[in-house]
Amino acid sequence: MDEFSFIDSIKQNTYKQSSLIKGVGDDAAVFRSDSKDIVTAVDTFVEGIHFTRKTMDPYHVGYRALGANVSDLAAMGATPAFYLVSIVIPKNWAIEDISQIFIGMKDLANQHTMDLIGGDTVSGIELSISITVIGFVEEEKARYRSTAKEGDLVFVTGTLGDSQAGLYILMNEGNYEDTNYYVERHRMPSPRIDFAKKLSYLSRVTLNDISDGIGNEANEIAEASEVTIIIQDELVPVHSSYYQFSPELQHKWKYYGGEDFELIGTVPESEWETVQHIADQTNTMVTQIGYVSSDKGNDVFLYRNQQKEQLKKKGYNHLK
Amino acid sequence: MDEFSFIDSIKQNTYKQSSLIKGVGDDAAVFRSDSKDIVTAVDTFVEGIHFTRKTMDPYHVGYRALGANVSDLAAMGATPAFYLVSIVIPKNWAIEDISQIFIGMKDLANQHTMDLIGGDTVSGIELSISITVIGFVEEEKARYRSTAKEGDLVFVTGTLGDSQAGLYILMNEGNYEDTNYYVERHRMPSPRIDFAKKLSYLSRVTLNDISDGIGNEANEIAEASEVTIIIQDELVPVHSSYYQFSPELQHKWKYYGGEDFELIGTVPESEWETVQHIADQTNTMVTQIGYVSSDKGNDVFLYRNQQKEQLKKKGYNHLK
Repeated sequence: MDEFSFIDSIKQNTYKQSSLIKGVGDDAAVFRSDSKDIVTAVDTFVEGIHFTRKTMDPYHVGYRALGANVSDLAAMGATPAFYLVSIVIPKNWAIEDISQIFIGMKDLANQHTMDLIGGDTVSGIELSISITVIGFVEEEKARYRSTAKEGDLVFVTGTLGDSQAGLYILMNEGNYEDTNYYVERHRMPSPRIDFAKKLSYLSRVTLNDISDGIGNEANEIAEASEVTIIIQDELVPVHSSYYQFSPELQHKWKYYGGEDFELIGTVPESEWETVQHIADQTNTMVTQIGYVSSDKGNDVFLYRNQQKEQLKKKGYNHLK
Repeated sequence: MDEFSFIDSIKQNTYKQSSLIKGVGDDAAVFRSDSKDIVTAVDTFVEGIHFTRKTMDPYHVGYRALGANVSDLAAMGATPAFYLVSIVIPKNWAIEDISQIFIGMKDLANQHTMDLIGGDTVSGIELSISITVIGFVEEEKARYRSTAKEGDLVFVTGTLGDSQAGLYILMNEGNYEDTNYYVERHRMPSPRIDFAKKLSYLSRVTLNDISDGIGNEANEIAEASEVTIIIQDELVPVHSSYYQFSPELQHKWKYYGGEDFELIGTVPESEWETVQHIADQTNTMVTQIGYVSSDKGNDVFLYRNQQKEQLKKKGYNHLK
């Protein structure tokens, strides 16, 4: 298959978004926003850094890469609409495997009625996939990290640490409980779009998606909002068989494991009932894990075993 | 410099676009379209494929990469507004050189009042830069490849083959006329934004940007519009000292050299005077090079030395 046949093979024959005017096939795509604000983000995934073929089939590489991007839209309260994919393809990848990457993306895209509207295909020595996502949000309803206030409840969706537990299982042979559950959580994340969209009923909610662990994400909220966040360890939700892993791994994955693609947020206490109602409606687990305190310093503290410790930022630094 | 300081160093302190609501610093950027259609495209540039440090300083790498993207917006008749940059950085590139890439982009961006509103920085073994551009166009005024009609004039902006001539000069030592001119045309393209925007006065104009040579671009118009295009070799505009190169190279660069980032288009004959007027206003050279014929076949033919020959597609195929 050459480049042009390949592009033909991944091109959609029909588009789902009525706001789309021109999809793939010209110098650029064109769409209309219909009095909504437009939300956009880009992420790049590199073989050996973000994934290896040992732990992911090409299908999962695509599914998860787009999932990570869609999770950014969820964290903005936006409805996904479009994606563009630039891919650098090395000679040691078969076109059939590259096609599987696109099928993985398409399966996730279809769940969110997203259209592939552009991209670029180039050769190189290292597989890298750069995805741009575009979504819509009602005017003034984009959700930021910077809106948390003293007295807010801090909550998360789902259970934490699962994705890294899945990766661990894939990398370390052994007998584990719920292997499929953890592996799927690693390979096929479920961005919390429906839940986040319905939060538009609230006048104020602070949101961040959990791509680098709540140790990092809570710090981003604390810094952007200029507040201090208190998290109580025993409240942080984990899967029922998560206790099979060592306490050290549990702690590491929960707070710094990342890639769960859940949401962390804060709301005024008065809105908590509404949040729980929206969670019920959208079949989303939601758990209060702490609160926004009146302390100065814009820090994050964890209460664990009657001890207070600071949860610092520990992001993966690509340029170190 | 670590990743976080680096991102801080390239982040804009102020934004120029009034339509921007949230720039860099949250999970995604947010903007408003103000009853205009939104145009978006993505392109990726890989070291060794699209550029080498032998022929480009890091500054030029950035300037030209964004220029190529902005040229796609010109070909849509759009006004550039935003760009997002995902960059894969190998260890053998110094952060200072990466900063120069961003300065090159910024200098071109400033010419078009564009804001950098997002991106991603990851490590890898090969430098690759993926740029997403976003622009606005009046409703129903996006310009496509598919609107050419029999009887239209075919025109191009600027002179062709210059970029490849510049590359040739950089790769082959020798005494050349106008060295600086050709080298700059290669390193610092000038996307035809002002000219293309003003074409909005026309009820119909077909546009394609010249990234792969008019041999390819004219074929894209012919296919998309289902017409046949006739080009007359002696009309194709070249720089005054272009004749210093061999006839074979002249021909190759003019038709298949690419990267001139000029525009090729077609308009009804009745609009030609307006096009020339807009060219004058925007200080743009514009030249009729042929016409759209009534022949069947959706092909492109070149008349050269009283002979008619077919100009076929010869794009660089990344997956061959």
